[in-house]
Amino acid sequence: MDHDSSALRRTAVIAGHFSAPFSSSSVLEPSACLHYTPPELSEKPPAFSTSALRLLLDGHDLASRDWLFQIMEKSPLFCPRPRGGRTFVAPDYNQSKEQQRLVTMRRIEYLLRRGVFDGWLTGSDPETEMRKFAFLECIGIYDHSLVIKLGVHFFLWGGAIKFLGTKRHHDKWLKATEKYEVKGCFAMTELGHGSNVRGIETIATYDTNTCEFIINTPCESAQKYWIGGAANHATHTIIFSQLLINGINQGVHAFVAEIRDADGNVCPNVRIADCGHKIGLNGVDNGRIWFDNLRVPRENLLNSVGDVLPDGQYVSSIEDPDQRFAAFLSPLTFGRVNIAVNSVYISKVGLAIAIRYALTRRAFSITATGPEVLLLDYPTHQWRLLPLIAKTCAMSSAANYLKLLYIKRTPEKNKSIHIYSSALKATLTWHNMRVLQECREACGGQGLKTENRIGILKGEFDVQSTFEGDNYVLMQQVSKALLSEYIAAHKRKSPFKGLGLEHMNDPHPVIPANLTSCTLRSIKFQLDLFRLRERDLLSRYASEISQHQAQGESTENAMLLSYQLAGELAKAFVERTILQIFVDDEMAQSDGPLKDVVGLLRSMYALISVEEDAAFLRHGYLSLDNAAAARKEAVKLCSELRPHALYVVSSFGIPDAFLGPIAFDWVKANSWSTLSNE
Amino acid sequence: MDHDSSALRRTAVIAGHFSAPFSSSSVLEPSACLHYTPPELSEKPPAFSTSALRLLLDGHDLASRDWLFQIMEKSPLFCPRPRGGRTFVAPDYNQSKEQQRLVTMRRIEYLLRRGVFDGWLTGSDPETEMRKFAFLECIGIYDHSLVIKLGVHFFLWGGAIKFLGTKRHHDKWLKATEKYEVKGCFAMTELGHGSNVRGIETIATYDTNTCEFIINTPCESAQKYWIGGAANHATHTIIFSQLLINGINQGVHAFVAEIRDADGNVCPNVRIADCGHKIGLNGVDNGRIWFDNLRVPRENLLNSVGDVLPDGQYVSSIEDPDQRFAAFLSPLTFGRVNIAVNSVYISKVGLAIAIRYALTRRAFSITATGPEVLLLDYPTHQWRLLPLIAKTCAMSSAANYLKLLYIKRTPEKNKSIHIYSSALKATLTWHNMRVLQECREACGGQGLKTENRIGILKGEFDVQSTFEGDNYVLMQQVSKALLSEYIAAHKRKSPFKGLGLEHMNDPHPVIPANLTSCTLRSIKFQLDLFRLRERDLLSRYASEISQHQAQGESTENAMLLSYQLAGELAKAFVERTILQIFVDDEMAQSDGPLKDVVGLLRSMYALISVEEDAAFLRHGYLSLDNAAAARKEAVKLCSELRPHALYVVSSFGIPDAFLGPIAFDWVKANSWSTLSNE
Repeated sequence: MDHDSSALRRTAVIAGHFSAPFSSSSVLEPSACLHYTPPELSEKPPAFSTSALRLLLDGHDLASRDWLFQIMEKSPLFCPRPRGGRTFVAPDYNQSKEQQRLVTMRRIEYLLRRGVFDGWLTGSDPETEMRKFAFLECIGIYDHSLVIKLGVHFFLWGGAIKFLGTKRHHDKWLKATEKYEVKGCFAMTELGHGSNVRGIETIATYDTNTCEFIINTPCESAQKYWIGGAANHATHTIIFSQLLINGINQGVHAFVAEIRDADGNVCPNVRIADCGHKIGLNGVDNGRIWFDNLRVPRENLLNSVGDVLPDGQYVSSIEDPDQRFAAFLSPLTFGRVNIAVNSVYISKVGLAIAIRYALTRRAFSITATGPEVLLLDYPTHQWRLLPLIAKTCAMSSAANYLKLLYIKRTPEKNKSIHIYSSALKATLTWHNMRVLQECREACGGQGLKTENRIGILKGEFDVQSTFEGDNYVLMQQVSKALLSEYIAAHKRKSPFKGLGLEHMNDPHPVIPANLTSCTLRSIKFQLDLFRLRERDLLSRYASEISQHQAQGESTENAMLLSYQLAGELAKAFVERTILQIFVDDEMAQSDGPLKDVVGLLRSMYALISVEEDAAFLRHGYLSLDNAAAARKEAVKLCSELRPHALYVVSSFGIPDAFLGPIAFDWVKANSWSTLSNE
Repeated sequence: MDHDSSALRRTAVIAGHFSAPFSSSSVLEPSACLHYTPPELSEKPPAFSTSALRLLLDGHDLASRDWLFQIMEKSPLFCPRPRGGRTFVAPDYNQSKEQQRLVTMRRIEYLLRRGVFDGWLTGSDPETEMRKFAFLECIGIYDHSLVIKLGVHFFLWGGAIKFLGTKRHHDKWLKATEKYEVKGCFAMTELGHGSNVRGIETIATYDTNTCEFIINTPCESAQKYWIGGAANHATHTIIFSQLLINGINQGVHAFVAEIRDADGNVCPNVRIADCGHKIGLNGVDNGRIWFDNLRVPRENLLNSVGDVLPDGQYVSSIEDPDQRFAAFLSPLTFGRVNIAVNSVYISKVGLAIAIRYALTRRAFSITATGPEVLLLDYPTHQWRLLPLIAKTCAMSSAANYLKLLYIKRTPEKNKSIHIYSSALKATLTWHNMRVLQECREACGGQGLKTENRIGILKGEFDVQSTFEGDNYVLMQQVSKALLSEYIAAHKRKSPFKGLGLEHMNDPHPVIPANLTSCTLRSIKFQLDLFRLRERDLLSRYASEISQHQAQGESTENAMLLSYQLAGELAKAFVERTILQIFVDDEMAQSDGPLKDVVGLLRSMYALISVEEDAAFLRHGYLSLDNAAAARKEAVKLCSELRPHALYVVSSFGIPDAFLGPIAFDWVKANSWSTLSNE
């Protein structure tokens, strides 16, 4: 009651505002003291073609992306809101998780009706695959919940059916999934076991009498946990479980089970609970599942890797249980690739907003009577944002490379796809969180307003650094894999091949004693320096591991103890990889202003990586003088990139409606007169 | 309708769960496969007295803190929730901002009734002041909105009345504020001007006929923005405005105005709008205010600094407008001190949860058949968390130092309070965000569940790095002040005095060519190294500025250009300060196990600071060999601190109820049987 009367009073007050009789000679005339000038008017014209840079950065499917953006902008389900003469779209995060879940499902139904998902599971030509990646990028910048809910349904559930299942599963579920006649989820993670999937405790036993598997949650720690879609919407799930045949554990296998009927009732022998409120992704209904003697027919075992014959005999095309286990994790690879790819697009959103704001917001004067200075004209502000733009562009190239690598995958390339996707997933998602944090702070308090997007994206995308593989664990796997390559190459006395390690076969690169500006910006020097770091760290790592082993440590323990070198090595590997890919994209351009700007971005990427990794100094790859020269050059690059900043972020291709009000006329967007339209 | 029927269906499904007839021979017996063992049982007993360490870290008012924690735990307004046999308190963040605002106000009313705020404005003895700090720390770990709403009312509004006002203002408003008969807010920031307060555009002119000030918002960019309390609850505000007397601008002054009547109706000539949804702090009703010829009596000018006589004559006790302006900003200092202090307590919450979880959660085995390993037994996990514990302890000492400095302030100390509070506010809040991010990732997905607190605290406290002074701007002010000291000392040819710079009068410290473990852990070496860095950076900075000036740059431009050295210098200053304060706290302990542990923490603080600041290498304060020795020693310290981790975080004094379920029996807290109690 108190609540109601207070609400009524507040409503009355607000209503009072709108009808308040202010004199027509109000001082609030359009003569604003602070004028907003669109950056397009205040900045010099672009020195290069922004659409050409967009083509380089997006890489593919520009028209399809724009089509999908339009589809989202047009629907009232995507919450279009007028602000300052423009319309912005973004979810309403002032809703409870229950409301967010409902509207997320509605948005999926709308996109389904518009044909966005056509061919996502039934098509398989490279063009469809690439367009799918593009669509996921576009949907992701609207809302992470939306893209995650799609990802779980199509690529975890659907991907498991497709890649772990065989014809009988494909016939039954692929088309039905694409049309959302079934809604799938993916019950792998348990309360007690996340990254360590091998340790899951769910048990499936085979009943020869009925030709069924009996699936059980033997204890509370075995409850399926974080299962996206389970809490409210999913009708089917993939259950990952240990498979017991005649008392012998055949390891982790995947089974299909129905968990809800068409009316939404939870099936018998299944119990489901909610995972509760999260700091983001509240549009995804993460749930927990328990199985109590749940029976699924023998045919529901996804049997591309291993199968159980009606009489209970276990058969598998893969002898080695480790390899068999690896095969079961393969649906996760798409997820990892997609997370890496998505995170770059989110960084672009953050940077586009922060740069546009920094080109219209002034603070402090440098002289007592001088005008206030644009944020982006402060060298500190340039230093905060421009290197991040360069990194984001370089990572954009790397993300495109990764997509192609994944789409053109062959069994031989599985290992390198695993390594590249792990390294890039970790690196690009950490970068994304850093970009969003820096952009949010660079926008001051405005960065905290939900309508301005940057801040809320932090909470929504925070999960990226730990899901589908904890970033630290993934980076350790990268250095472990590099070490194996190193040991194998030495053992077989043959050159390095693959993973870009061919440079290890060449003589040690030599870094000049004095670095001129010209050298610092040369591709050869930059690649030499990055390769020097990588090869030295790899041999240091190998030798430290040997030393530990010589002192009696097991290989496993030795690796645990050498974690610092392992981290430095994985970073060296991924940064050299990104530089190399970005260089390739640059070289593919014809000479001209665009190539010049990409060259500036590439040099900035290289030199800021040098600035930020103390390993260059710590292990002596650069003298103190050379490091000082590199820093000075990076500062120079900042001022050279400054005039291009607006046009680089314009090339990110994010439609205006997906940026926040502070990216445009924020004085008008905050004016009293706009209140009535909100 | 669709909505309703779906909600009904879901309700039915959930109800079905609870009544689902599972056989009594259910496999879900208490025989969990993964057992939860409380860390207190699995860890060795403490080597030191945790209550003694708590006394060192909290510094004061332990019993008062515990009393207040109890008060909050006992009230249903603080949302006590049973989970796994325990009860936890935390706000319900699944509520809309409107709901969060209402309940925040209710919680304030409850604390008021319990006498928590007695003497907060009317008392002024050091004990009351220190207890106030302690209370704010305790309230802050419950909810940032709650403490911010109190801070605005008591220390911005109340502080302005107290410190900028004179007897007539004190008599009228101090007691009334303490009793919440008036609710105050603080209208300083505008849409167009945040950190740069001097540039605000609100205008007050004096009308000699009526002896009133006429206050106006001349344009949209002058609307008051982010005003906590303005959107819903505040009845009064301090208005910061340019003061025009006979056409002459006397600079920024502060005025008291009523903005709502007792019924909550907005007063005539005032318009108020909401700031909208934010990524955190949604329990605070931030609003925007416009003034249209609002008249306030002459007596409402807060006149301790400057006054207007009835005839319109302007008089001031401070001649210099710069000093006058500085005086007006003085109420912000308390805020800055309080933010620094609060952020350390939040870091403690994050670390206590992450460490307790890491002592009960296992992942992966090191050998094929071995048991899974406790997270905190991984060297990587130790490296992620234990240095942060050491830093947090050192910063805890620094926070206590800052409180005392503030409470014992004298006009002579204003400058050093400004410098210390700026440096520590920036450093401790950045540290806090880093701690929370690392702890959230260290807890994996559990770190994202709102009930586990760490993740949600990130969004709630993110604002700290930019409010009450942007951290970057504050750090620049620190180096600027150090530079002035440097120039002044050289000009007057007298020794350095104050800000801990006395070491600059001594001969250059000498760093041994070979660092033994014993040297690396010695206080003398650590202080020498930190002082060496500070003095060298200060003279480098001064000389770079001179060089810029010699090339024709203005002093202001020179400072803008030397931002890298400025940043390194400010960091060197604050880290040397923190080390020195922590050393003092350590030396005050009598010999014994507690002092030993504090010594380990202090060495870890020193060596991790060395590890993380490339300046030690970049400017040659350490040879590569010495840097390698320091890193090795830090790793050794990790394993030595490992057995103390549980007891150090226990000494943080955070009651169990304020930690999340994952800090305790998370298997039980997630069990099916607890669902019915949630």
